[in-house]
Amino acid sequence: MSDTWLNEGLYDSWGQRFRVRKELAHVKSPFQDIIVFESDSHGRVLMLDGVVQITEADEFVYQEMLTHVPLFTHAAPKNVLIIGAGDGGVLRRVLEHKSVERAVMVEIDGDVIELSKKHLPGIAGDAWNDPRADVIVGDGIEYVANAPDGSFDVIIVDSTDPIGVGEVLFTDSFYQHCARILGPDGLIVNQCGVPFMQADELRETSLRRAKFFPHVSAYVAAVPTYVGGFMTLGIACKGGDPTVQVVAAVRARAEQTGILGATQYWTPEIHVGSFCLPPYIAKHLPTKK
Amino acid sequence: MSDTWLNEGLYDSWGQRFRVRKELAHVKSPFQDIIVFESDSHGRVLMLDGVVQITEADEFVYQEMLTHVPLFTHAAPKNVLIIGAGDGGVLRRVLEHKSVERAVMVEIDGDVIELSKKHLPGIAGDAWNDPRADVIVGDGIEYVANAPDGSFDVIIVDSTDPIGVGEVLFTDSFYQHCARILGPDGLIVNQCGVPFMQADELRETSLRRAKFFPHVSAYVAAVPTYVGGFMTLGIACKGGDPTVQVVAAVRARAEQTGILGATQYWTPEIHVGSFCLPPYIAKHLPTKK
Repeated sequence: MSDTWLNEGLYDSWGQRFRVRKELAHVKSPFQDIIVFESDSHGRVLMLDGVVQITEADEFVYQEMLTHVPLFTHAAPKNVLIIGAGDGGVLRRVLEHKSVERAVMVEIDGDVIELSKKHLPGIAGDAWNDPRADVIVGDGIEYVANAPDGSFDVIIVDSTDPIGVGEVLFTDSFYQHCARILGPDGLIVNQCGVPFMQADELRETSLRRAKFFPHVSAYVAAVPTYVGGFMTLGIACKGGDPTVQVVAAVRARAEQTGILGATQYWTPEIHVGSFCLPPYIAKHLPTKK
Repeated sequence: MSDTWLNEGLYDSWGQRFRVRKELAHVKSPFQDIIVFESDSHGRVLMLDGVVQITEADEFVYQEMLTHVPLFTHAAPKNVLIIGAGDGGVLRRVLEHKSVERAVMVEIDGDVIELSKKHLPGIAGDAWNDPRADVIVGDGIEYVANAPDGSFDVIIVDSTDPIGVGEVLFTDSFYQHCARILGPDGLIVNQCGVPFMQADELRETSLRRAKFFPHVSAYVAAVPTYVGGFMTLGIACKGGDPTVQVVAAVRARAEQTGILGATQYWTPEIHVGSFCLPPYIAKHLPTKK
């Protein structure tokens, strides 16, 4: 076994470390420092600016929850916008939904896409070539600022934490445009970090989203390599309250897509249950009106 | 900030690390290597044989789920046996349940109790002095082998992983005696590790428990410093199926104890939802008869 270890640099005084079998790529793009390495424990790992974004072994948790929850919360999502998610894993899951007619993915860093295609081909699979996919290397902020009113049903924001290149995806202006370009039943999901370590992220982005959406909440997922207990995925809806879903309705939608039984983490029960937040997390959400 | 880091040694090629502010104790007991240190990130941390057992910052997750779930699953727990849990945190939570008349705690390593009393006094609080508590420094296996038939309602096993001193708590003989000393509605809970990293632990102990209990299942908790996604708590019941509980009934029990609203992780909704397992975990449980 190799004696080379890579420490995640997300937190000052605590974190995870990986034994590195082999570094596959290390690129300084115009936006960030990108590393792909082969780990002993988790298959291949993608790190941006020293922070784990995805590993082959556990990517299914984050991807399934970031995608299937919003797409089954919306009654009939046809047009989906993905911001970030350069590895293509969200795109692949979005396209598993037969109702989806168009999936636009806007990733600012073309190098992340290229390195993912080369070193993590299993994560996106054949999604890049799906005729419904429109992959744009560009600025997500600019894209939402210019997109027509009501042109999307679901927006999925798969950003880094609100430092560095991802910071602008946590601003008033961004959420305001998102609300504008969503249809009347539209909803947006974005990653809000691990509240045990980064409670500010959930608290502040929830307050921001509450300015533009009537229903602001969050749901949880236990992602093995986003260490520190539950991570939260923030959800904001223009239509119904996402916290009052029932298992049978979610199950019926999943049956129609063929996704039921094909997931490793997401199930209709986990979908509904993930909106039940532990008090230590719930206290960071805005009080319901 | 100190430049001293302590790496958890649980897994060969992946794990967490803590910046150590100060080592408070390092004792080689007859059973294991015990370290208590002050971390920068999680308050004080107790490690046994290089594996994190508890931190002041996140102990509430594990303790609440290990205690409140079995004690609210049983209709009226009076006699509770705790094996291990030398820090006293489970004992404290058990005694919060007014229905409990007697809580016997059997910890094999007296040094863990003494070091916890000295360095982690907040975890057990005043539980050590509760007249209902009977704290025994001794062998849990021997205790269950000698205890009378049907003398307990709930058994909570807070062991280390099935290596070293904790190994005997994962044997047929141990579970057989546990089944014998439980009453007709009795149930046992034990920690079954983090399945993403240690699936064997859940699979093997579930099979063992299935030999002696009609209902064998597991529920999940996202414990920040038991890294690797959900940890599982195995539950085996002589009476009813624990997976079919309803929120209103759990809530009614919690209201009677005064625990409702006083927890940071456990809620009636999370109690019931924690039995909904992701498929990647559920596949390790025995098929239901």
